[in-house]
Amino acid sequence: MIVVQKYGGSSVADVEKILKVAKRIKKRIEKGDKIIVIVSAMGKTTDNLINLAKSLSKNPHPREMDMLLTTGEQMSVALLSIALNELGIKSKSLNAFQLNIKTTTDHTKARIIDIDIDKLNNELQKNEVIIVTGFQGITEDGDLTTLGRGGSDTSAVAIAAKLNVNCEIYSDVDGIYTCDPRIVKSAKKLKYITYDDMLELSSLGAKVLHSRAVELAKKYNIKIYCASTFSEEEGTWVVDKLPEWLEQPVVTGATIEKDQIKITLNNLPKDKKIIEKIFETLSNNKINIDMISMFADNEKFHLSFSVLNDLRETIEKSIKAANPLIEMSYQGMFDKVSIVGVGMKSSPGVAARFFKVLYENNIIPELVTTSEIKISVLVSKEKSELLLKELAKEFSLGG
Amino acid sequence: MIVVQKYGGSSVADVEKILKVAKRIKKRIEKGDKIIVIVSAMGKTTDNLINLAKSLSKNPHPREMDMLLTTGEQMSVALLSIALNELGIKSKSLNAFQLNIKTTTDHTKARIIDIDIDKLNNELQKNEVIIVTGFQGITEDGDLTTLGRGGSDTSAVAIAAKLNVNCEIYSDVDGIYTCDPRIVKSAKKLKYITYDDMLELSSLGAKVLHSRAVELAKKYNIKIYCASTFSEEEGTWVVDKLPEWLEQPVVTGATIEKDQIKITLNNLPKDKKIIEKIFETLSNNKINIDMISMFADNEKFHLSFSVLNDLRETIEKSIKAANPLIEMSYQGMFDKVSIVGVGMKSSPGVAARFFKVLYENNIIPELVTTSEIKISVLVSKEKSELLLKELAKEFSLGG
Repeated sequence: MIVVQKYGGSSVADVEKILKVAKRIKKRIEKGDKIIVIVSAMGKTTDNLINLAKSLSKNPHPREMDMLLTTGEQMSVALLSIALNELGIKSKSLNAFQLNIKTTTDHTKARIIDIDIDKLNNELQKNEVIIVTGFQGITEDGDLTTLGRGGSDTSAVAIAAKLNVNCEIYSDVDGIYTCDPRIVKSAKKLKYITYDDMLELSSLGAKVLHSRAVELAKKYNIKIYCASTFSEEEGTWVVDKLPEWLEQPVVTGATIEKDQIKITLNNLPKDKKIIEKIFETLSNNKINIDMISMFADNEKFHLSFSVLNDLRETIEKSIKAANPLIEMSYQGMFDKVSIVGVGMKSSPGVAARFFKVLYENNIIPELVTTSEIKISVLVSKEKSELLLKELAKEFSLGG
Repeated sequence: MIVVQKYGGSSVADVEKILKVAKRIKKRIEKGDKIIVIVSAMGKTTDNLINLAKSLSKNPHPREMDMLLTTGEQMSVALLSIALNELGIKSKSLNAFQLNIKTTTDHTKARIIDIDIDKLNNELQKNEVIIVTGFQGITEDGDLTTLGRGGSDTSAVAIAAKLNVNCEIYSDVDGIYTCDPRIVKSAKKLKYITYDDMLELSSLGAKVLHSRAVELAKKYNIKIYCASTFSEEEGTWVVDKLPEWLEQPVVTGATIEKDQIKITLNNLPKDKKIIEKIFETLSNNKINIDMISMFADNEKFHLSFSVLNDLRETIEKSIKAANPLIEMSYQGMFDKVSIVGVGMKSSPGVAARFFKVLYENNIIPELVTTSEIKISVLVSKEKSELLLKELAKEFSLGG
């Protein structure tokens, strides 16, 4: 059987860990599988390279930035292949050029267009393991590109999709939990989670799996298995639908996203153009705003939204550029607490139970947003962990 | 004018140095030149990568080793290009894939076959500076290769040869001296040196310029200019013939090669096959032996040669494998002292003057070899520096 495996940066952070990964792969090979391995850069390599570049230029030339960053993954695939060959496993590493991983030309955030699957299959016939550089591709003109943070997950799922095989994602986290076990001690590990729940959970900060990879897996219906690199403990399957024997829970998980601020734009004239201009400007500056809330009195609009604290300066500049007369105010810091669950669609009363927990614990939310499968509130940092624990109790997310 | 410049690893060892190199290049651009820059890996990067690989495997898979090592140069070209773009110079980095630097398939010691000069010229029209990864190439099948130690010099000269332009090699050494100035204080810097003298000097340990690069420059008659990266001091031109106004010295330079041992194989039977087998075995094990001396009495051959001390173990194994009965003995450590000069060809009596210096200083050589343009002796370490100084005096190599 052919399988795609991806090992994250912390799994290959040093030569000892690379050797452990190689031994894990060898065991699997001995069961008769052929493996395509996608590897991230070792440990903090990418961060270190970014820092080098930033010390030469505030805005490093994006094409050259990608030329720089792609070396990280090339290093780790070569080292893993050296380790595997030393263990007697026929292994070959391939970079984006060699596998013709075509992407768009958006340097530092390119999207995969195609992969030379014939080359991959051909090499797979001659080798037991093919190790592919994650996170990178090439443009039509032969320039190197990178896929943005967490892009190695996307590389892995894209290759799995091309081959129509399962994709195993190994990291230092042993699966997907209902809540952060560091906060809610009794948090349960999920055996299965749907793509939709996972998308909400990953964008909310459960950093097990990059959301672009989940989107891609959903599109091509590729099963993802998330587990720990260095244990044999059972992990979590990310799938289209839960198996029929498994009862769909109402709420799949609850998360905290830390260090948010609330930005309020007061007394905006009742002119739709203004709101449109503000959102357009923020979007052009690649600012993801969250939890938008708007109300209007007789004369004016008032607009609030939450963002990560470190975006404050960029937002201030963008809004001033859009219209220097806009009144802005900041409040914070806050944490954002959410519950997520595809099951919420078919279970009325979830919001009522959510707000009951809020009021019973004397927590007044700054902002509230809801979707079909998610409820989020922005609350004070002092109360956020308490809220998470109480929500875990209410929705049976504990052990 | 188009010029090729090469900067060694110590010239780009950190971001401060990379920025200095970028400023130096900028100055030159402002004079109206277009530059193709070849860069080595930063400082000790290549050594560090080799150590990582060796900690995973005693004999790392050579193809994967090249995949690993080529990242070093890709890092430095990207960083230099980021620095140049930041300074407002239109610059683009290219790796072996992008420039289609075709080599043989001899991983870790490949030879350049061809370079895509159209691509290079095309990119040079769109940019002021093209920065090329030294030391690397690709095979017909798209595997990455490296050219062996000092291969960046070879990359630079190969590109200069393709374009038929001069090649400037910048390093932490400001030119080529008649002797090592750390030993002979009055050593002179040469303004010009011939390829032939340079070949003898570089293979003898004057590590300014890789000898393969000099061979290539000689073949295509490419002028090389060696100078310091971080000073404006005049360097040394390596050329086919000295300018006519310059008198050809009898002896161009004198060198010491340290830490040699002498290996003697005694009482070999008078059978040519044995000698042939020994040299073949050593050659198969990539051992460069030096200063071979042989004498025969009525019944037996006796063979001596010098090698670098760290090769002793490998040689012992090879010879025992060739014929376990051979009697071997070692003597050492010694230093090898040589004088080099194309002018020796037309000046009789150089050997006599050389031996006069030896005897006047009570130095008895262990081994002697001579060629048309070189005389070398293996002498005790205690006497080697004295000998160098006295030879410098005799042949006017001092200031």
